[in-house]
Amino acid sequence: MEMDNRTTQLLTRYQSTRKMSRDIAEPLQPEDQMIQSMPDASPTKWHLAHTSWFFETFVLNRYLPGYQPYAPEFAYLFNSYYNQVGPQYRRPQRGLISRPTVAEVHAYRQYVDDHLQALLRTGWADPAGLQLIELGVQHEQQHQELMLTDIKHGFSFNPLYPALVTREPERGSASTQHWLTYAGGQYNLGYDGPDFHFDNEGPRHQVLVPPFKLAQRLVTNGEYLDFMADGGYHNPLLWLSDGWAWRQQQQVEQPLYWQQADGQWQHYTLAGLQPIALTEPVCHISYYEADAFAQWSGKRLPTEAEWETAAGSLPVAGDFLDLTRLHPAPAPAGDGLQQLYGTCWQWTRSAYSPYPGFKPAAGAVGEYNGKFMCNQLVLKGGSCVTPRGHVRPSYRNFFPAHAQWQFTGIRMADDA
Amino acid sequence: MEMDNRTTQLLTRYQSTRKMSRDIAEPLQPEDQMIQSMPDASPTKWHLAHTSWFFETFVLNRYLPGYQPYAPEFAYLFNSYYNQVGPQYRRPQRGLISRPTVAEVHAYRQYVDDHLQALLRTGWADPAGLQLIELGVQHEQQHQELMLTDIKHGFSFNPLYPALVTREPERGSASTQHWLTYAGGQYNLGYDGPDFHFDNEGPRHQVLVPPFKLAQRLVTNGEYLDFMADGGYHNPLLWLSDGWAWRQQQQVEQPLYWQQADGQWQHYTLAGLQPIALTEPVCHISYYEADAFAQWSGKRLPTEAEWETAAGSLPVAGDFLDLTRLHPAPAPAGDGLQQLYGTCWQWTRSAYSPYPGFKPAAGAVGEYNGKFMCNQLVLKGGSCVTPRGHVRPSYRNFFPAHAQWQFTGIRMADDA
Amino acid sequence: MEMDNRTTQLLTRYQSTRKMSRDIAEPLQPEDQMIQSMPDASPTKWHLAHTSWFFETFVLNRYLPGYQPYAPEFAYLFNSYYNQVGPQYRRPQRGLISRPTVAEVHAYRQYVDDHLQALLRTGWADPAGLQLIELGVQHEQQHQELMLTDIKHGFSFNPLYPALVTREPERGSASTQHWLTYAGGQYNLGYDGPDFHFDNEGPRHQVLVPPFKLAQRLVTNGEYLDFMADGGYHNPLLWLSDGWAWRQQQQVEQPLYWQQADGQWQHYTLAGLQPIALTEPVCHISYYEADAFAQWSGKRLPTEAEWETAAGSLPVAGDFLDLTRLHPAPAPAGDGLQQLYGTCWQWTRSAYSPYPGFKPAAGAVGEYNGKFMCNQLVLKGGSCVTPRGHVRPSYRNFFPAHAQWQFTGIRMADDA
Amino acid sequence: MEMDNRTTQLLTRYQSTRKMSRDIAEPLQPEDQMIQSMPDASPTKWHLAHTSWFFETFVLNRYLPGYQPYAPEFAYLFNSYYNQVGPQYRRPQRGLISRPTVAEVHAYRQYVDDHLQALLRTGWADPAGLQLIELGVQHEQQHQELMLTDIKHGFSFNPLYPALVTREPERGSASTQHWLTYAGGQYNLGYDGPDFHFDNEGPRHQVLVPPFKLAQRLVTNGEYLDFMADGGYHNPLLWLSDGWAWRQQQQVEQPLYWQQADGQWQHYTLAGLQPIALTEPVCHISYYEADAFAQWSGKRLPTEAEWETAAGSLPVAGDFLDLTRLHPAPAPAGDGLQQLYGTCWQWTRSAYSPYPGFKPAAGAVGEYNGKFMCNQLVLKGGSCVTPRGHVRPSYRNFFPAHAQWQFTGIRMADDA
Ligand SMILES: [Fe+3]
Ligand SMILES: [Fe+3]
Ligand SMILES: [Fe+3]
Ligand SMILES: [Fe+3]
Repeated sequence: MEMDNRTTQLLTRYQSTRKMSRDIAEPLQPEDQMIQSMPDASPTKWHLAHTSWFFETFVLNRYLPGYQPYAPEFAYLFNSYYNQVGPQYRRPQRGLISRPTVAEVHAYRQYVDDHLQALLRTGWADPAGLQLIELGVQHEQQHQELMLTDIKHGFSFNPLYPALVTREPERGSASTQHWLTYAGGQYNLGYDGPDFHFDNEGPRHQVLVPPFKLAQRLVTNGEYLDFMADGGYHNPLLWLSDGWAWRQQQQVEQPLYWQQADGQWQHYTLAGLQPIALTEPVCHISYYEADAFAQWSGKRLPTEAEWETAAGSLPVAGDFLDLTRLHPAPAPAGDGLQQLYGTCWQWTRSAYSPYPGFKPAAGAVGEYNGKFMCNQLVLKGGSCVTPRGHVRPSYRNFFPAHAQWQFTGIRMADDA
Repeated sequence: MEMDNRTTQLLTRYQSTRKMSRDIAEPLQPEDQMIQSMPDASPTKWHLAHTSWFFETFVLNRYLPGYQPYAPEFAYLFNSYYNQVGPQYRRPQRGLISRPTVAEVHAYRQYVDDHLQALLRTGWADPAGLQLIELGVQHEQQHQELMLTDIKHGFSFNPLYPALVTREPERGSASTQHWLTYAGGQYNLGYDGPDFHFDNEGPRHQVLVPPFKLAQRLVTNGEYLDFMADGGYHNPLLWLSDGWAWRQQQQVEQPLYWQQADGQWQHYTLAGLQPIALTEPVCHISYYEADAFAQWSGKRLPTEAEWETAAGSLPVAGDFLDLTRLHPAPAPAGDGLQQLYGTCWQWTRSAYSPYPGFKPAAGAVGEYNGKFMCNQLVLKGGSCVTPRGHVRPSYRNFFPAHAQWQFTGIRMADDA
Repeated sequence: MEMDNRTTQLLTRYQSTRKMSRDIAEPLQPEDQMIQSMPDASPTKWHLAHTSWFFETFVLNRYLPGYQPYAPEFAYLFNSYYNQVGPQYRRPQRGLISRPTVAEVHAYRQYVDDHLQALLRTGWADPAGLQLIELGVQHEQQHQELMLTDIKHGFSFNPLYPALVTREPERGSASTQHWLTYAGGQYNLGYDGPDFHFDNEGPRHQVLVPPFKLAQRLVTNGEYLDFMADGGYHNPLLWLSDGWAWRQQQQVEQPLYWQQADGQWQHYTLAGLQPIALTEPVCHISYYEADAFAQWSGKRLPTEAEWETAAGSLPVAGDFLDLTRLHPAPAPAGDGLQQLYGTCWQWTRSAYSPYPGFKPAAGAVGEYNGKFMCNQLVLKGGSCVTPRGHVRPSYRNFFPAHAQWQFTGIRMADDA
Repeated sequence: MEMDNRTTQLLTRYQSTRKMSRDIAEPLQPEDQMIQSMPDASPTKWHLAHTSWFFETFVLNRYLPGYQPYAPEFAYLFNSYYNQVGPQYRRPQRGLISRPTVAEVHAYRQYVDDHLQALLRTGWADPAGLQLIELGVQHEQQHQELMLTDIKHGFSFNPLYPALVTREPERGSASTQHWLTYAGGQYNLGYDGPDFHFDNEGPRHQVLVPPFKLAQRLVTNGEYLDFMADGGYHNPLLWLSDGWAWRQQQQVEQPLYWQQADGQWQHYTLAGLQPIALTEPVCHISYYEADAFAQWSGKRLPTEAEWETAAGSLPVAGDFLDLTRLHPAPAPAGDGLQQLYGTCWQWTRSAYSPYPGFKPAAGAVGEYNGKFMCNQLVLKGGSCVTPRGHVRPSYRNFFPAHAQWQFTGIRMADDA
């Protein structure tokens, strides 16, 4: 039997996505792939195995007759948080698991790839099964971003400041910020099209959005330095109560990865330690910092509805994942919204709550999104380490307010 | 000069509110008023002083010419979190402050009362000043509820189980739950009338509410025991991810204040240790527990908009603060929504976020509400320890998802 | 039947000791007696009850026929750490127990006093029972010292700096330190006489002591300020490894209770906040600080054997507990060892280990000393808050190296 | 110029010691050498680099003219705790340092080896320098033991239970314990011979030792299981106060690495997960457990003086490090003390305190031992992972009472 067109396309995307994970890990030494620098981050090696476990557990175990899992312990070691399929190795201890080695993990990946491709080539086309493969591809793309944010976090503790890419810092000063005005009205939020989307993006529903303004581009390092120079980190009146407590307890005085040397600000990037470039967007910003900056500016952060209606049907274009760069770029010249996609995830002031009528996906993959709908905020737009083609206007990324290690920046908003 | 009508009414409310605080503390020994059982709770004595500090700081210091603060250190000791008026004594250490004693705190209260009444009797009627007195009265009412929740929490650690009231536990089984259906539509949310309201209740704005259903009454202890008997506390699939982590780390196996003795469930109440009554509403429930219970029931918690539009213009009546009871009562028989006000605060699934166009109140009292708009959920309706007359449909109470020590219960909702 | 002479003396000592506890608590308000400022400290009220529980549990329950305990819950609430007689209320939560109130605790004390005196007046003279009464008296004396150290610690958190006594600070500079040389040899250590002593003071046994020198008096505040001025708190080479870790983690930069105001050092004392007096002995010093100071001086701390053999048969005289002073006094002029007893407990470099052949006392009171023989250091000599008559040359006080809240000072030693 | 005899011997020992470190690491993958499973343990890779840093810092930098350190950052990364030579990378984060990789660390080792051998071959024979090389060799031997204890600890968290050796578990039951009696008297303690010894082993000095008894062999797993079966882990009367608190807080219910499966006790060893062998000595025992076991047996642990005088001039023979075994062996048949050396480190009840007249070694290496003389206990005899030739009767190993991850066992003692 032959694969139909759609299956062929899926197989191609499966293959290129799997290859991208290998490409990301390629410049890393086995030692690098062991680092777990905080409970929220995972070793590269674990990401490589977990994404394979996903296909094994949700596709091969169910749909490939006679499939033998590669190793029984992997069901436990590489399950992240799916209680429905079994217990999980303790997350904060992933960095202690030296075996399977990197080489063994790649053998595991190959084993899963071989079986999954064999399954597809049989002409098998169970719709639910194909959807799970699609979900697995999207899932692996999400972990590709995490591989990069986690290795950056891990490397940042090394005084040798390892570099994965070569890149010259930008020159010049920040350009003037401009504002765009939106009329408000009744809009549809969320996704209802035929293409892949996560369960949390639906159901599509109507909302009322008052008139508002959005900043044309993201806040730059130069502007953020003005906030710092004005005592932004030491004025409690600018901060949310929880944010001020966090700032004090963690002794936060500058963005993550920034340090001062000889009176000059530098930051650790995946190109090594570099001087701060004024025109680049400020990045690795917590919600608390983003909100304090907006307060200081006399503005506010956008709601998810504002961001999504402003994005409307603009093309999903921007500086997405490029393994030769791995750093957000300054805004280009031009009219209209800049840096909407790629560059930096943009914090919204909207809590990550279920949309009206939201139902988690059926089965174990229903644990994917719904159970995280508490104590998190929505981020929109993707970043410079988000794989191209992964996001949409309705895409809802979410992190707690203190998270800094993602490529997160600030888009400001205001009442119109 | 004479007081106008409005000022006279304000003075009367000031006096009765101040008296209520004394009445609440009256059965307490000086030793009781020292207890601080967790950083979130404060000693009774501190509440008595802090509510007076509020009037001193925001009214007397500004509006009464020549006013001498009672004691300069109190500006530091009894400031809760108003950075704009100065530094604050460390909150978790309030239980270490034995001086001023209870008697001295009452002398402080008297001093503030004397001066504030003298100010009002001069015929002074600065509108902003009168508003601040009104705010101080409302603020003291909020602290009255906290005095009772905090002393209950503190007493619960004492194996002698001190009782403030005498009360017989209810008998009988839980009545059947009924459901009411609401049509949905475009509604106004928030307050815009002439009477007192907090800044966070506005601006009034339009929202779209899909059709929904609300449970007629709160969830009972009997129903909650069914959830427990069905393994509710040990099934991670029912819980939010953060909720499950909280449950495991805190080893939560039953509602706060519950304990099992001789195979029977009992709970600590302000009438001492008592058997669980099946018809009473389950109380002292965290958001995590409320959400897990709703999941188990195949329902969900209401949004703030659903609760507020259902409340509509129903009378604000219910079992509010009664110093002879201090415990939530079973639902009465009857049609329509029961236990809407008083009884137990009802968790909504709505994050405590600013309404569109929200602006904090001007001046230092702007720190009252806005800076807490992160990581909290809205609760509606008031409880059996909320002073009568304090709440409205638009009233927004807020606590983090793990909070249990308030009189919080569960109203279920569903899609229609 | 009549009491014999020894019983009469015991009764007298019982009565005066019980009275001393009341005298210590007399200037305290009920609120003061609730403070628990750290797990190691207890509320005054708890000390008052626990010392009575000791007589009730170990004497009245066993020896007074038909004795009814005052309240059954007290067996649990006021047991400190005697596992053999039952479980204990959690130590860090003693500050939450407002009931029994101070007045009720005094009624409890009276009840115990009445019964114990009645027992003695029957002519009962069971030798083991009388020994337990003697132990109870000594035990209460130990708690008298703790009542004062704990209330000082608790009051120190209050910016009103409550004072229990009135006292003028000393003037003048520190006198020159002198050194006394001892020949060394074979000595007996520990106690073997007929009078009361704790089990940990025996058995008496022989030790070899090399020649050594002792400083004539304790280290003064003036000398300690020299250490601080020379960067003593910032030079890791002076500190034990654990000490440096403690200093960094706790951010210790000066002795407990010291603070700088307007360029002047002050310290909280039981006479309120006062300027540092240069001639007074430095007090509230951890072992880590004492050791670092000695290192800086090119000296060392004495061993227990050195201290005890130097004390030899010198009279046990010094500035012991005086309720009008509660503060260590400067060394008087004169030859020979000064400030040997009273003034400040003197850290030795000797671990608190069992003497050869040590056997804990029989029964539950065997939990008194032996189980603490790990991770503690021996202190000798008593302090200005130790009841007169309580200590001996062989007396072994013990605290962990980080403890600061006792009246602890520094006697230096050196090899001869 | 030629090397003299002593230098030639030193070079040989240097070479064989350096080779042993490589041999220990040889079966490990690069990933394995990254594991840091607790702050007290270090990655294999770090041990390999740190022991080289020691030679570079204390020998090559000082004595080899024109020596260029391999990499300037290593002075910071691989300094453990020598404040005198500079700051140190944070110990708990050693597991985050993936670069230098294992291969680079071996290149560093080779570089140091080349230069150190070149230095020695010049005929240079500075006595202080040669002593530092000797110290470096002894230091590397200590780290060889730590490499094995640390990798065992790290591997134990992996459900795959990696094995470095193949070994069959022992069969049979525990033999009867016998006791040897010693007369006591005046003895010399410590070392004063011409050979290498650590500063903490001196000065040699006289002590009085009362008569005592020692158990002929170490406590076996079989005997320890009796203690467990008798409720040893749940009887607070057997435990030191700190020990009981540790046991409760850490929920210790069996020795480290033990687990029960199907009603059978197993333990993780460097040969993988194996059934408990009754005749083997119990191992990985904290001081708290050792003391509780001795209490339960009606015995006690020996003092350092008892152990050292009993060892007297017995040959230093036993089951020392053997890379094909890595596990303690049962006691052989025979008279006299068994398992005195090798097998398991034996806890003494003696605090790790300075000997009378102790002076730390001059210079930075004076930080080696003296600053740890607080809150630790002395262990004697070496273990099955101690390099042969490393220990002496006077050798003083030391760990805090809660440490379990060393190969520590129990030798009991008693009063005679
Ligand atoms: Fe995942
Ligand atoms: Fe307040
Ligand atoms: Fe006691
Ligand atoms: Fe070392």
